[in-house]
Amino acid sequence: MRKIKELGEFGLIHHLSSRLKFRAADSILGIGDDCAVYPVKSGTNEVISTDALVEGIHFKLSTTTPEALGRKALSVSLSDIAAMGGAPKRVLVTLGIPKKISVSYLDKLYSGFNEICNQFQVELAGGDTVSSPKCFFINVAVIGEANRVFTRQGAKPGDLIFVTGTLGDSSLGLQLLNKKKRAHEDHKFLIERHLDPTARVHEAGILSRSKINITSMIDISDGLVQDLYHICKSSKVGAQIHEDRLPQSPEFTRTCNRSSIPPLPLLLNGGEDYELLFTLPTDGVKNLNRQFLKAKVLVTQIGEIALKSRKVLLKMRDGTMKTLPESDGFNHF
Amino acid sequence: MRKIKELGEFGLIHHLSSRLKFRAADSILGIGDDCAVYPVKSGTNEVISTDALVEGIHFKLSTTTPEALGRKALSVSLSDIAAMGGAPKRVLVTLGIPKKISVSYLDKLYSGFNEICNQFQVELAGGDTVSSPKCFFINVAVIGEANRVFTRQGAKPGDLIFVTGTLGDSSLGLQLLNKKKRAHEDHKFLIERHLDPTARVHEAGILSRSKINITSMIDISDGLVQDLYHICKSSKVGAQIHEDRLPQSPEFTRTCNRSSIPPLPLLLNGGEDYELLFTLPTDGVKNLNRQFLKAKVLVTQIGEIALKSRKVLLKMRDGTMKTLPESDGFNHF
Repeated sequence: MRKIKELGEFGLIHHLSSRLKFRAADSILGIGDDCAVYPVKSGTNEVISTDALVEGIHFKLSTTTPEALGRKALSVSLSDIAAMGGAPKRVLVTLGIPKKISVSYLDKLYSGFNEICNQFQVELAGGDTVSSPKCFFINVAVIGEANRVFTRQGAKPGDLIFVTGTLGDSSLGLQLLNKKKRAHEDHKFLIERHLDPTARVHEAGILSRSKINITSMIDISDGLVQDLYHICKSSKVGAQIHEDRLPQSPEFTRTCNRSSIPPLPLLLNGGEDYELLFTLPTDGVKNLNRQFLKAKVLVTQIGEIALKSRKVLLKMRDGTMKTLPESDGFNHF
Repeated sequence: MRKIKELGEFGLIHHLSSRLKFRAADSILGIGDDCAVYPVKSGTNEVISTDALVEGIHFKLSTTTPEALGRKALSVSLSDIAAMGGAPKRVLVTLGIPKKISVSYLDKLYSGFNEICNQFQVELAGGDTVSSPKCFFINVAVIGEANRVFTRQGAKPGDLIFVTGTLGDSSLGLQLLNKKKRAHEDHKFLIERHLDPTARVHEAGILSRSKINITSMIDISDGLVQDLYHICKSSKVGAQIHEDRLPQSPEFTRTCNRSSIPPLPLLLNGGEDYELLFTLPTDGVKNLNRQFLKAKVLVTQIGEIALKSRKVLLKMRDGTMKTLPESDGFNHF
């Protein structure tokens, strides 16, 4: 096993960056100087965000592969760009590396970065590589472009609430992972949804290029209810969602049934689905459905924006209404 | 002592971001959505970089204040922008926070961020706040603008080599800090140069606005010789520097004399000075000296670019020449 110490910092950077294939067409400088450099062109907006994954909090080395970890580290950051309707262009990756991590582990991690960079045409334009004796961490800063910017503020009473894909898969996958249940094909699917989520970059592109009047958008990282509260607070509105409309994958439904797991808490509060949650007036629905049908992506109307309160209400299957509580975030502190 | 747990992640972000004063005039969105957003304007280049500081590697909580740590975390990133001749515009700050860190500590850290943001008109536009049980880390990604871009490649034989400020202060300061010598006024100065360095953003601005033909530039983070090797390798040239021209602060000279510390290794290899190292043809020297005199900033010609080899040579005080070895980077691995 080759050790990082043998390569040194510069050797390591050279070794890893030589693995990267995608380079943005307009880049003036990539890795190898003090900064990456590119020209800016008028008429668009830049959208920037950053996200860190810390060993023991966001991942365990024993339950994920370096390739999946690399893909996820990029995907969670790219998801923030998608949430604004943007296209990611460049990432800066910081690795905090403990001694137990080998060069071959980092090679595989970079294979994961490379896959996502190629898939979404994103350049890994620079970063920092530091020793971190006590914990492994990955920070990704991402710079994207958005012609139309979809924020959290702008949802109006009467707007309909939509979500891409299915809910709860990631949090159920995490439960299975923690219980070491990964034999069943359904389990594998759900665990993969947790370890290897897809940023909805293509779907954000569809919405951005469409003429649909998206009034607000966010990605679901903290759970449906929490992220809907973010929209409600920013837009100064309330919302109502319907229990019977929350989209479930067949794998999710079957696993909940088989193991008598109540699905609702996972659908409402399960984090890390990285699906897009957005609102639009009713006159955009036909266009939306047409576009998503063409792209073969599931999109589901799960509720409506309401004026009355700034609460998120759930209409249960039996017709009763329930006010859903807001959390104060991912509280690992 | 208020605990972070009581605030929760969103409460903490709100609490900390409310302390930030500087907002870029063209910002569309700052902290509080999935991304920060701003329009891009043609005719310039963006320069981006990222740097992390990890507890136990780059700092110790016992030897620095949260305010100085906040200033340094930003300064080391801003220094990379300065090294390209750019002006920093926005930063994204990730904090990996262990339980021992209190809200009041973070308040003071943010005061440090705030000072640098105000001083250099940089917006703290977003970030991530994560729990990191085993180590405290700060990652700063920075986005700047550069009309003229000064890279490491472009130094030509015959060019003169200049450095801003003085050398070796930071590494001598670190030695004093580790030996717990901080009684003398000179020691305080040197330790402060280590704990609280200044990014040469203003000086980069002077060079950028001048008509001086800067052929290459870098900031000295790894030590003069190592960073000069970076220029030599990228530019495919060699260099010669003069022992008797390496600029020293009076505090550095006096401390070395008093404690019989050989100054040369510190001047050549001491890291973290964050001074600018750059090259220009002889016909630019008059203009350079005039500009820096006006700005009251020390700038010193320390050597010349040579064709012969791609080595860095030192002309000693006694006239003999010595080839200086290259290191393989900051090797904490």
